[in-house]
Amino acid sequence: MKILALESSAVACSVALTEDDFLIAEAYQNNGLTHSVTLMPMCEDLLKNCGLTLQDMDVIAVAAGPGSFTGLRIGVSAAKGLGWALDKPCAKVSTLEAMAWNLSALKGDICPVMDARRSQVYNARFTSDGETVTRLTPDRATSLEDLGKELKKEKNEKEQILVGDGAQLCYNYFQQLGLPARMVSPNLRFQRGWGVARAALDQARTGTLISAAELLPEYHRLSQAERERLERQQAQQMKTTEGE
Amino acid sequence: MKILALESSAVACSVALTEDDFLIAEAYQNNGLTHSVTLMPMCEDLLKNCGLTLQDMDVIAVAAGPGSFTGLRIGVSAAKGLGWALDKPCAKVSTLEAMAWNLSALKGDICPVMDARRSQVYNARFTSDGETVTRLTPDRATSLEDLGKELKKEKNEKEQILVGDGAQLCYNYFQQLGLPARMVSPNLRFQRGWGVARAALDQARTGTLISAAELLPEYHRLSQAERERLERQQAQQMKTTEGE
Repeated sequence: MKILALESSAVACSVALTEDDFLIAEAYQNNGLTHSVTLMPMCEDLLKNCGLTLQDMDVIAVAAGPGSFTGLRIGVSAAKGLGWALDKPCAKVSTLEAMAWNLSALKGDICPVMDARRSQVYNARFTSDGETVTRLTPDRATSLEDLGKELKKEKNEKEQILVGDGAQLCYNYFQQLGLPARMVSPNLRFQRGWGVARAALDQARTGTLISAAELLPEYHRLSQAERERLERQQAQQMKTTEGE
Repeated sequence: MKILALESSAVACSVALTEDDFLIAEAYQNNGLTHSVTLMPMCEDLLKNCGLTLQDMDVIAVAAGPGSFTGLRIGVSAAKGLGWALDKPCAKVSTLEAMAWNLSALKGDICPVMDARRSQVYNARFTSDGETVTRLTPDRATSLEDLGKELKKEKNEKEQILVGDGAQLCYNYFQQLGLPARMVSPNLRFQRGWGVARAALDQARTGTLISAAELLPEYHRLSQAERERLERQQAQQMKTTEGE
């Protein structure tokens, strides 16, 4: 089963091409260029250099969130377009689970941390036995304070292997708390297509792939526009109530 | 310092672009296509997609051996050509050391094993503290038997993390011997450009970069043609001695 996997949820952009659990090719780029410019040429170059076409793919997978709203929209739109045009099933992959799969070789607790701004991070916790990744918490938007409290409550404070663009921030904070943690090496610090493909393979195996029509981003919180509209509505409502 | 790193020592082909210890971009491909076709387009696509040119590079690095003789010749020739044409310093990197750097995030003993045919493997042993790789043995062509004996002799039989196209063969053999070992996950199983760039960075820091003219492959044993000529010469010599 050939999977084309797209990752554009944060600053790094990556595409992977896998056959079952074999990595045929992977492209990765982290230089701040916008994904709307880089993602599709990366797909095209990857397939061309491998002598393959989009028609050869069995599944289109994408990191659907959490992440940068714009990044997710670019990735999910591209995957939806490809899946729809090619009439192929799609895999909607948790960005955080994909990040954990990139580190499955590391035995221990994996803690992906994405900077979500507004004093929050996107996080979920996983553990790996060196081969398979097991989820410990759901994906969530949380504060470093709450994440620290959660870890402090646990009986054995296991070393957290930190990955993602919030890793450094989280490492510094955990140091203050005396929580054992380390950052993963620079080559594995950010999102990569492999993890998306590997998580998608599990979905294919468990029969949970979806259609291109069903594929939607998973933001895990309201967008700025929605938040501001809600705030305006609430303010309006309060005014109306006061006026009564 | 920007480093362009080439890896074509075995079946996988990879190119990385780094700035100091930051990975800007990496391309990886493992589909059996010949490196003489894939390597240069990979370089070109990588630079183009990053909006960079060869002139922006400070160092040209290459996995110079051990490895497939043809693969090494392709990689080293390409690096020599680029280094000479651009008048940039070059880094001649041990393929095995580069493989270890790809796994520096894994705390423990790293054991790269490349299938060298004729009942041999190319191997060197390394250890990582999760950040920095330390070499434990020189690069060598050896038999699995001798590698097994070496590990059996050591007081604490530490788990070996196996990487490379000889990893499966070595894992099976170590299982028979009761030596603790595990294979690294599929996304990190084969050579990648990052490790070459990371090892090259150490050379730049210690002032051991070389000129393009000095760059040569490091085969670690004779080529088939040289071996056969030597055998013919020895047979001839014996005949002459017998005739005396």
